[in-house]
Amino acid sequence: MRRTVLFGVAVLSLVACASEDVAKWIWCPGDYALWRGNELQARRLEHGGGYPTFWASYNFHPAVQFRKHVKLAQPEVVDIAVEGAIRFTGHNDFAGVTSNKFVFPAGDYQIVASVFNGAKPPALYLNGPTIKTDSSWEADWRMSGCWSQPGVPAPAAECEDRFASADKRPGDYRLPTRPEKAVSVLRDGNRLFADFGRETFGFVKLLGANKAGRVRVIYGESEPEARELDPMKVDSWEFADVPAAGDFRMPLSRGFRYVHVLPETEGLSFKDVAMDFEWLPLEKTGSFRCDNERLNKIWDVSAWTLGLTLREIPVEGAKRDRWTWSGDAYQSYLMNYYLYGDRQLVKDAIWYLRGGDPVVAHVNHIMDYTFYWFMSIRDYWLFTGDKTFLEQAWGRMVSLMDFAIARLDKCGRPHNAPGDWMFIDWAPEPLHNTGGVTSFEQMLFVRALEAMAEVGDVVGASKKLVGMYKVRAQKLKLEVLPLFWSAEKGALMHLLKDDGKLDEQLTRYPNMFGLAWGYFDDAQRASVLKNVIFNDKVMKIQTPYMRFYELESLCTLGRQADVMKTMLEYWGGMLDEGATSFWELYNTDEKGLAKYAMYGRPYGKSLCHAWGASPIYLLGRYYLGVEPTKPGFAEYVVKPCLGGLKWMEGDVPTPSGPVHVRVDASGVSVTGNAGVGKLVWNGKEATVPARATVTLK
Amino acid sequence: MRRTVLFGVAVLSLVACASEDVAKWIWCPGDYALWRGNELQARRLEHGGGYPTFWASYNFHPAVQFRKHVKLAQPEVVDIAVEGAIRFTGHNDFAGVTSNKFVFPAGDYQIVASVFNGAKPPALYLNGPTIKTDSSWEADWRMSGCWSQPGVPAPAAECEDRFASADKRPGDYRLPTRPEKAVSVLRDGNRLFADFGRETFGFVKLLGANKAGRVRVIYGESEPEARELDPMKVDSWEFADVPAAGDFRMPLSRGFRYVHVLPETEGLSFKDVAMDFEWLPLEKTGSFRCDNERLNKIWDVSAWTLGLTLREIPVEGAKRDRWTWSGDAYQSYLMNYYLYGDRQLVKDAIWYLRGGDPVVAHVNHIMDYTFYWFMSIRDYWLFTGDKTFLEQAWGRMVSLMDFAIARLDKCGRPHNAPGDWMFIDWAPEPLHNTGGVTSFEQMLFVRALEAMAEVGDVVGASKKLVGMYKVRAQKLKLEVLPLFWSAEKGALMHLLKDDGKLDEQLTRYPNMFGLAWGYFDDAQRASVLKNVIFNDKVMKIQTPYMRFYELESLCTLGRQADVMKTMLEYWGGMLDEGATSFWELYNTDEKGLAKYAMYGRPYGKSLCHAWGASPIYLLGRYYLGVEPTKPGFAEYVVKPCLGGLKWMEGDVPTPSGPVHVRVDASGVSVTGNAGVGKLVWNGKEATVPARATVTLK
Repeated sequence: MRRTVLFGVAVLSLVACASEDVAKWIWCPGDYALWRGNELQARRLEHGGGYPTFWASYNFHPAVQFRKHVKLAQPEVVDIAVEGAIRFTGHNDFAGVTSNKFVFPAGDYQIVASVFNGAKPPALYLNGPTIKTDSSWEADWRMSGCWSQPGVPAPAAECEDRFASADKRPGDYRLPTRPEKAVSVLRDGNRLFADFGRETFGFVKLLGANKAGRVRVIYGESEPEARELDPMKVDSWEFADVPAAGDFRMPLSRGFRYVHVLPETEGLSFKDVAMDFEWLPLEKTGSFRCDNERLNKIWDVSAWTLGLTLREIPVEGAKRDRWTWSGDAYQSYLMNYYLYGDRQLVKDAIWYLRGGDPVVAHVNHIMDYTFYWFMSIRDYWLFTGDKTFLEQAWGRMVSLMDFAIARLDKCGRPHNAPGDWMFIDWAPEPLHNTGGVTSFEQMLFVRALEAMAEVGDVVGASKKLVGMYKVRAQKLKLEVLPLFWSAEKGALMHLLKDDGKLDEQLTRYPNMFGLAWGYFDDAQRASVLKNVIFNDKVMKIQTPYMRFYELESLCTLGRQADVMKTMLEYWGGMLDEGATSFWELYNTDEKGLAKYAMYGRPYGKSLCHAWGASPIYLLGRYYLGVEPTKPGFAEYVVKPCLGGLKWMEGDVPTPSGPVHVRVDASGVSVTGNAGVGKLVWNGKEATVPARATVTLK
Repeated sequence: MRRTVLFGVAVLSLVACASEDVAKWIWCPGDYALWRGNELQARRLEHGGGYPTFWASYNFHPAVQFRKHVKLAQPEVVDIAVEGAIRFTGHNDFAGVTSNKFVFPAGDYQIVASVFNGAKPPALYLNGPTIKTDSSWEADWRMSGCWSQPGVPAPAAECEDRFASADKRPGDYRLPTRPEKAVSVLRDGNRLFADFGRETFGFVKLLGANKAGRVRVIYGESEPEARELDPMKVDSWEFADVPAAGDFRMPLSRGFRYVHVLPETEGLSFKDVAMDFEWLPLEKTGSFRCDNERLNKIWDVSAWTLGLTLREIPVEGAKRDRWTWSGDAYQSYLMNYYLYGDRQLVKDAIWYLRGGDPVVAHVNHIMDYTFYWFMSIRDYWLFTGDKTFLEQAWGRMVSLMDFAIARLDKCGRPHNAPGDWMFIDWAPEPLHNTGGVTSFEQMLFVRALEAMAEVGDVVGASKKLVGMYKVRAQKLKLEVLPLFWSAEKGALMHLLKDDGKLDEQLTRYPNMFGLAWGYFDDAQRASVLKNVIFNDKVMKIQTPYMRFYELESLCTLGRQADVMKTMLEYWGGMLDEGATSFWELYNTDEKGLAKYAMYGRPYGKSLCHAWGASPIYLLGRYYLGVEPTKPGFAEYVVKPCLGGLKWMEGDVPTPSGPVHVRVDASGVSVTGNAGVGKLVWNGKEATVPARATVTLK
């Protein structure tokens, strides 16, 4: 064992953007995420027209008070920038704000800035010698600091490192773009057919129009899709009015590989087709390489897939439907922790999905999507250690859980209440029970309650409230879940009917959750593996969505070699079909055009779907074997598992820098940039200090 | 007695805009009022800078579903216009909306239109042979019609007659303007000083700039105010950057009479000053004329004052502060019922003041302003008979009352909870108790609870809920209010201290409420008149705000002659001071510049204040004597009272046309355009049928 201490004791940067002495734009927590999230969802088009979401949407707060207590020995001149109309209220001696400088008088007082904006969330930037806006300020939409009364406690203002100067306004934020060319452009009269070589995302540019006119643009992830001229058979197309001769950029960015340009105006033609590629600019600090080139390709295409679906906030798919779904996003977050380790995109999606108060429906109107939402915050805490966000979000966690609890059946179990939807998976067998309760939903609800209890303890919620969550979780786990166990089948059954009897349906879903989350004893575990997981008579999982949990459950049992085989077959199979990004669903039986069909539509399937990118997560967490055990990687374990590979090497992001792992037959070497790591390999253990490299032979 | 039936039986139009077969823009109830109300409040400037409100503000719902069940024997082509992105969801066979025509298929089904808009409230206009948007549609921000499930009941969509064609978009609405010239423009070097002859409102225009440059514009309601150059002594001024030579219009409209134009850029000059007058276009169906020209002038100036303060929604004052305050607005509504009889401005202000959910503070952060809010809805029902609005607003009434009840003290009495404010009146004696409870607030809360009970019965709320409001009101009235009665003083006292004893303070406020609302027996009434109302030792009321209730209480006792004397003295006194609109406060002792001062600022007083216009209300209700006794004037009384005048004549608006009254010594003549009127005069009674004239000699 060799240990190299690089920089001595690590300094963890676990706090939000208050820690550095740099002024940043601040706003009411969640408001910009909601605003950008709403705008993003509204960009979905289908059959040439708009397609807004059909779940309850919330708006930002148009008026916010930003407050901070200051002690100024002398007056202070401060640079001021604001999104909206501003007044420093509660201090009658303050004049109106008439320029981009403001003089705060000397004294010991609370600055109360009231900001109104009807068009975008109110935001404030103050930068003076000591007065600097950051998350040490309060942001309060309740505006309780009026009448010069002391304000009631309010959450910390939200800020982001990318908005750290007066001219970097959060309301002006746009994803960056760069020009790219098509790999080939074919001509057929005045029609153009462009191939960009692989799945991509951006604004199509029609170059060199000879005059003004109307054009129809068909986007395809596959070539036949873009060649399909029936407007009802293909979703992703739109009309555009080119205003004049010259170059024209389509107004909205899209996901596609192929573009078919069909002038509608007689005599209209274009010289070429190109695009402005648009992406979320994150640093890819996660990596993976091994001796198996097919697996390397799977990792690369997974990373490309995930990158294309991370827009302003994560969406489901690049082409369709470009909405943010909680169940899908939950997996995107976990993949992100192993590719970018970015916290902002997770926070933003959590804010967007939750919306505001009052709660009138489940997240996305789907009961289990509410439960994934709670679980995502527990994960966020573990991977980032960002307590500020937990404190900001706690109020909305409580009100959503109030809603969920109010909709339980009379035995305290989640069930299909009227108006709710339950989404387990896309599967050939029906899974949506219309009566009774499913083990799947009970298990997710247990996890959601456990997340509430854990976060409640962190933010210092009342013991009574936290205790209630714990008791509910325990009761479900100890009293309700056992009712689903069939001694005959040796597995958790899917449905408990209203008459108290088990339905005969046996599915993988609850059993793989039970495995992954350690709900079984040894005998049950062996039984479930034999009777469900490795039983070909039980309906197979076809979506990468639920395959995520199936493979995870196997990994937690040390079955990495089995999982490796599946990855190479399933994701490798998509590569063999020509995939340049991973699909919403893959069925090895579907060949030819059938493989593009879904939802009864010939090109309904998304060929670039976030949940298709799970190898990033599996390889990082269960092969490189790095996972946090204390929030923000203050402590973590590294349990590498080659799973049949000869060697592998890679990085897992943490808040304080990547953990690097290299493994081959001769040994393992870990360079830890996080807190204190525990390396476990081949029956040996070693401690990995911060900023040190440890090798086990 | 002579009776002339004009058109036989009246047809009352009490329903909202669903009754006529005309398509109108529809939106989620309250959303446009909130949006316009927020924007209006944000136009306040002070000391050259913005001055946003410091109370909790709510935003519109960015996503709304509009739903209606249709039965179409054949497909229907419908004109479609939308504010936002739209999709007809829940029907997979519907294509995207790609033009301003849409074909609905034949069938028996629910149209579900999902509309998203992040910038202004989602709104929809459909106009086909049978499909027409109006308040027979549902508007549901909860979006519960997804997954093709039948939607849960939702409120009727809101619409307005002024938005009844595709091109009249509710989001484009602006108050109309017309150019007006100054009465005089004085020059002093390159400075201009303009007088517009009377209080006015609009956009100042600087004509004939010789070049680009910066200018400072000072607005004054009085000449000395506009001449005051110290920027901290005068509130209403702003800088503007004139972009080029020529004419320039100031970006925001303002209230003023005088305008002082001070070029800041060397050599910058203007040829002239003018304005675009801006007003809320309502038909003045109320009128009043009599033999006393001073009173006629008072009525005219009151009408001008009210008109200037009714903007997109009612505001407090034309110059300052141009915010909507519930206590002030409550009186504006009542004046409006006697001048314009407009329902839209009242609804819009009620929506704006209430905001959305969750409730986090009292209306305007003032406890009694919450109570006036409830009372205003009861009045609205009486004057308009518009049940649709009651049904739309009921949910927000309940949640605000829940909030108010949660803040009561342990005896169920309104008190100053932390963070709340209580505003009784601007008065020399302090009225804001910091301990104990006031009779004033108890009485307003009784009225608020009674309004809840009455509206609850109308909308069919649960008997349990309505019963709870009734019981609370009764308990306060029968058990709490008597505690304030002092046998020694023969009056209701102001404050009940925490030790259960009465404070010595005696004010007019609770006593005049008690008179006006009939809370006293004959002996108490006589005692209160003698010991409070006509007792000069009790602090006089100086604001027209509380004078409104004082004079109303006298009128309900038949003391119109006393009130006439006061009107001629008090409002006539302002006219003698040169008022062209009525003031926020008038004290006959204040002469010279002192009369413009308030709030410790030399020109702090508003000289055009909505609450200054109450003679409109008093003369219509208590001299012409017209008031509704059944909702929407289905039944009403006319009890004229000359109060010392020789003759008077006028009109009172009703939903079905004005009631005309003419009275002189020889008799009274009433022409009723409303429901069934009861004329009471000189001990005689007569029934006034709809559209008939009845004369009593």
